[in-house]
Parts: sequence; structure tokens; C-alpha cells
Amino acid sequence: MIRQDIGKASWWWPVAATNSDREHIYLDNAASTPVADEVISEMLPYLKHQYGNPSSIHKFGRETTRAIQLARKRVAELVNASPREITFTSGGTEADNLALKGAAIHAINSGRGTRIITSSIEHDAVLEPCKDLERLGFQVTYLPVTSEGMVRPLDLKKAMSSDVALVSVMYANNEIGTIQQIIELAGTAHEFGALFHTDAVQAAGKIPIDVKAAGVDLLSMSSHKINGPKGVGALYVKSGVKLAPILHGGGQESTLRSGTENVPGIVGFGKASQMAGERMQAYGQRITQMRDYLVAKVLREIPHSRLNGARDARIPNNAHFTFFGVNGEDLIIKLDEYGIAASTGSACSVKKQKPSHVLKAMGFSYEEITGSLRLSLGLQNTDQEIDRAVAALVKAIGELRQLSPFKSKYA
Amino acid sequence: MIRQDIGKASWWWPVAATNSDREHIYLDNAASTPVADEVISEMLPYLKHQYGNPSSIHKFGRETTRAIQLARKRVAELVNASPREITFTSGGTEADNLALKGAAIHAINSGRGTRIITSSIEHDAVLEPCKDLERLGFQVTYLPVTSEGMVRPLDLKKAMSSDVALVSVMYANNEIGTIQQIIELAGTAHEFGALFHTDAVQAAGKIPIDVKAAGVDLLSMSSHKINGPKGVGALYVKSGVKLAPILHGGGQESTLRSGTENVPGIVGFGKASQMAGERMQAYGQRITQMRDYLVAKVLREIPHSRLNGARDARIPNNAHFTFFGVNGEDLIIKLDEYGIAASTGSACSVKKQKPSHVLKAMGFSYEEITGSLRLSLGLQNTDQEIDRAVAALVKAIGELRQLSPFKSKYA
Repeated sequence: MIRQDIGKASWWWPVAATNSDREHIYLDNAASTPVADEVISEMLPYLKHQYGNPSSIHKFGRETTRAIQLARKRVAELVNASPREITFTSGGTEADNLALKGAAIHAINSGRGTRIITSSIEHDAVLEPCKDLERLGFQVTYLPVTSEGMVRPLDLKKAMSSDVALVSVMYANNEIGTIQQIIELAGTAHEFGALFHTDAVQAAGKIPIDVKAAGVDLLSMSSHKINGPKGVGALYVKSGVKLAPILHGGGQESTLRSGTENVPGIVGFGKASQMAGERMQAYGQRITQMRDYLVAKVLREIPHSRLNGARDARIPNNAHFTFFGVNGEDLIIKLDEYGIAASTGSACSVKKQKPSHVLKAMGFSYEEITGSLRLSLGLQNTDQEIDRAVAALVKAIGELRQLSPFKSKYA
Repeated sequence: MIRQDIGKASWWWPVAATNSDREHIYLDNAASTPVADEVISEMLPYLKHQYGNPSSIHKFGRETTRAIQLARKRVAELVNASPREITFTSGGTEADNLALKGAAIHAINSGRGTRIITSSIEHDAVLEPCKDLERLGFQVTYLPVTSEGMVRPLDLKKAMSSDVALVSVMYANNEIGTIQQIIELAGTAHEFGALFHTDAVQAAGKIPIDVKAAGVDLLSMSSHKINGPKGVGALYVKSGVKLAPILHGGGQESTLRSGTENVPGIVGFGKASQMAGERMQAYGQRITQMRDYLVAKVLREIPHSRLNGARDARIPNNAHFTFFGVNGEDLIIKLDEYGIAASTGSACSVKKQKPSHVLKAMGFSYEEITGSLRLSLGLQNTDQEIDRAVAALVKAIGELRQLSPFKSKYA
């Protein structure tokens, strides 16, 4: 019932052609996404024939310089920035590191404040640089969140002071999908003269973002979350905002990020951004419908299940559940056996098996945290896949609850 | 006369098929190289079907984890390292930054010395991090070089003291190709308890490197200099050597380098490393022959020309000349018109038009510096191309000397 728009738009690529194994259903699109065919097509010439170093002044160098210019324009357009406000990096993590450390070190050098305010539910690519800056003498405040994972603008206001150099709050959370009130948060940061950074790795390309309307100074993006290649990302740096570089060398990217440009990756990111911008509305409609279908089906068919995060202020492709009486790690392994690729939350944290700091900050009990599962949708998914996935989920959870010490309670 | 080995080996790909324009001859392989067809073939599945995040524990994640393991093994083998001693980065610049800042910051944290010794002819990816560390309070000593661009091990010995945390001397120079006496330099650093890093971006994959025999602790490599993709590199970190990370986040690469792995890039770098290792001897022979043919022809046909750098201790693909009475920038532009892609030196420095710090350190006069040209060869070049390039060079230099104020002297 929600497939009526499929095949209508030229940006839509053949469904179900991107899975490495037709039997396996990929519902971990928040971790990474397949690269679109159109993106690969635009990248290939820059691997094969257009191999010049963009710093070279000869023909080969000029060709790749032009390709980067086009990509910069396309990435800028996705968030309503100017091309010169886009700095390419090796990914979202480097963009976050550059924003935080770059702003903090510039603040020291220019005699500004040594406080940083962030939220307690940021990605490790923000939290870990914050910890590193604490070692350098910065004081970092971690704002609490509501049970839906929302940072309250009033909490930021209360925490602010004139010695805050930077406020960093993510646009949308990677685990539970909650979209923050960025305009209010950025406005509050500016009232006190601080810069405002947002990690938009999960949001950019999925929901409309306008850096000017939002009033942000720094915004991180990643290519491989929006059907572009891995190994490339970008930091929006508002015109006039000064950062200290974290990678020094040949002076590429207006000296803000040295290193020979990853031309094929940048070209691919540019194309992926253009496609994401063009399909934004259709993507939002289709993925939201499919996600809502999934959520309703899961809550209907699986007892003792709950959707986590905000109902409305939520990126379209995220569904995050708690299944009581089940261990999420066991569930992922069982789902994998049944041909479903899912996640407990951040891919980066899974192998470490540490309980989610996001769910902890939302006040979840140990049982609520361990029973959690993230299903994140992508363009290649179909309703048939959702049906199959929910059937597998019902089966897997039933089996796990039979083995659970809480069997009498949930099975 | 030097084409007898072409076509014999399976690793050799179709000659002259890689130029974006058959009429244009690419002699700037030290700046970047075409990606080998075999490398692209191995990368494509990881763009198209194997798109899992290596941190994910499901099938898609396990597939990309395995691919990275194989690539790590292949890169390690190129320099006789263990796979666990290889940390993937976004390129040579990041590898150099990680080596220098990582070692320096770890040295502060562990109460070691605050001196660094490097050479005056390093790439900016080493010199600029050194300047950044000077701002943090490190004292950096820049060793002089001979007129051939060689660091004298005795100069290092004299400069050493027990408070030196790190010595960094490049394996082979990017402008003039001179290979340093790494074993002696590393030995001297170790006598005083310092770590030894070498930027092997221009050397790895072109000449045999054995990190164990050389005794180095840290070694930087780049993929796109050896017919692999741009946007990926590696740092060899000797087992037991501790570094502070410069990118913090999800804890990838054993927490030394956070950020979702650039899987297609890493896979491509692995394949390029394997190919470079397999063809090492043939590459050395063929490229050295072609280079020597080029050098002899240039010196014979162009009066007032000189080869710079060491005659023997030199990477095979480098030819660096001074043409008296000519401006190198003008020469590059004219050569580009004639269909030859060349460089004055480091690609990164060309657009800045600053005189080469390498040639300055070698004691070159202003005239010798401005009249310099680098021609760097690659597997796709042919003898016919060399002949055409030298003919273009003769023509271009003749024309430029006619316009030169030193016309009476050189034309």
C-alpha cells in the first residue's frame, strides 16, 4: 500500500538490486547505505581517467579541481550554504573533530572562553573530542535530555555563560532519531556569544536543513549515510567563523584541511547530495510511510514492545524499540541468522558491548536498555521486506523470551 | 629499446589506456597516479553490494570487516610489517600528522622529552605539524642537507640529546627523489631513546622497504601514489609504540583512528599494495631504465640543463632538472599547452608559488630554484611518450629562453 510512488521518479534506482544477498534484508541504513548507481557512475572517471592531483596546475589538475568545485556546490545546496562554506573531510567523525577541536583551539588562541556545552546523547565523534578537550583544560557541560531524547532549550539557557566558546548539539540522534530544536538552541548560544555546532550526520539529506534559517555556525555531514561513498564528509563553516586546522600540511581546503583531496569520494558525495536534495520530499513521504507501517505492525504483533524516541520530531528512517525480556545483542544475532541486518544502536558501540549512553541519559532502566533494537530504513527497502522482517522479529523474540529468566512475565 | 619487459607480466595493465586524453602525456606521477583496473575491480563490490559498516556485527558488517583484514595484511606485507601494526588513515598527510602529533602528545602525557628533530626538506605534511607543535611548546630542530638533498647521519648525531621525543626524516624526497640513509638515522635516534618516523609516501611501493630491517617505529604510506585510490593511506606503528589519537570517536582502528572505515578505499589500497609488491623488481628495472633514458636525452639535447638530487640513491621514477634561464612555472604552462603534464615540485606548493624549501635547503641559488622542473614517471608511460615529451621540452625551453632577459647567456 505504500509503494505507489516507486518507479515514478528518475532518481529512484532498481529496488532490491543493491543487497549483496537477496535473502538478506538490510535494516541498518543508519550505520551505512549502499552507494547509488548514479553516484558510482560519476565517481568512476575520477578513479580511471581523471586522476590528476587538484593542486597541479596542468590539465589533469584543472579537471579534478573543476570536479571538486561542482561537488562543493552540490553539497552546499543540500543545506543552503555557499560553496566556500563547505570544507571536505574524510567523514563525519573528522568533521566533528574539526568543529570541536578547531573551535576550541581557536578560542584559546584568541583568548575566548574555555567552556563547551554539549548534550549527553551525542555521538562518540562529539563526546570523545570533548573528553580530549577536557584533558587540555576545557570544562565541558553535558546537558540532560527528556525521556524522548530531547534537549530542553531552557536547560541550555541555564547552563550558558559568557565564557562558553562552543555549544554542540546534534541535529538528529543516531540511535533514537529524535530531532532537536536547533533554531532555539543556536539562538541561545549566540545570545551569549558562543559558536553553535550541530552534528547533522543522521539528518542531512533526510530532512530539509537550512543552515541560514537554523542559524548554525558549524554543521557536520557524512556521505555514506545518504547513499554516497564511505571515507568522505564535510563541515559547513559559516562565512567569517575561524577554526584552527587539525590536519596540517599542503594547505588544501583553504588551509583548513590539508591532504590530497579524495576526488572520487568528493565527487560521489556531491552527486549523493544532489540526489538527496532532489528526492527529499518523496523520500520523506515514502520512508515515513514505510517506517510507520513497520512501527504499527511491530507494536501490534509483538507484546511487551515499545517505540522509543519522539513520535513526531523524528527522522523518517528511524524505528527504535524496546522488547522487554529480550537481550538486544542476542536478538541481533538471531535476526542475522534469519537474514535480517539490524542494530542495537550506534554501529561504533556495538562491538564494545557497552550499554547505550543515549538510553541511559533518557532515564531508561537496565532492562529497557538491554532490550533495545534499532531498525533503520533505506531507499532499497520494500514493504515485502518489512513484512518478512517483522515475521522474523516475532519468531526471534518469541524464541528468546522462551529462554529468558523472565519467561513467565513476557513469553 | 627499453620496452622488452612490457606485456610479459600479468600485473601489467594495458599501456596508454589510462590517459584521459591520448594526446596528453602525464609525467606527474609523484603528484598522483591512475588507479589500476585491477584495483577498481576489487573496490567496486564494496561500493555497490558490500556496503555494511565494519562495526556492525551482522553479515554486512562481517563482510566488510573481512575485506579490511585482507587489505591490512596486504599493506603490511609491502613493508614487512604485521597486519596489527597498520593503521589506516585518510591519506599520507593524516598519517604524518598522526605520527608527529600522536608521538609528541603521548610524549608530553608520559613525561618524555619535548624536542623533535626533522630535516629541512620534509613535505609540508611533516613541516606544518612541526610548526603546530612549536606553537604548543615543542622545540623543533631542522637538519640541513647536502647539495644532493641528503641528511648526514652525523648531523643528526650531533643534534641529538636525551630530551628528543621523536626524529622524523623522510624515506625519499618528493621533489628531488633522494633516498635517505634511514637505517643509520633510525639507529641514531634509538641510541638516544627517541622514536623514529619516516614519511615513505614517495618510497613505499617503489623501492623495497622493510620496516624491521630499517628499524623504524613509524612509517607513513599513501595509496594514490602507487596506483591506488585517493583518500586513503596508512601509518605503520611498530608493535609496542604508543601514540595519542588525533581523531576521536567510535574507536575504530584499535582506538587510534576513529571514523567509519573507508572500506572501498582501504580495499583498493590493499590491492594496489599487493600489486606494487609483486611488480617491485620489474617496476624498478623498467622505470629506472625509462628515467635514465629520459635524463640522458634531456641533458644531451638541452644545453644549460642539470639533473638535481642524488644520482644513485634515488627513487626510480624521479627526474628533477634545472634549466637555466627559464622560469619553471612558465615552463609548466607551456608544456601543458604542448600536451605534457609536469610539475616544478610538490603539487601542494605549486599554486602557492612559493620557492621550494627543498631546493633552498640544498643551497640552490634563486635562478637554480626558479628554473627547476620535476618529471615523474609511471607505469602507463611509454618510450614514445618520453621522446615526445623531450621534443616538447626542447621546443618550450627554446622559446622561453628567447624571451628571457638572460637570452644572450642561454638562448
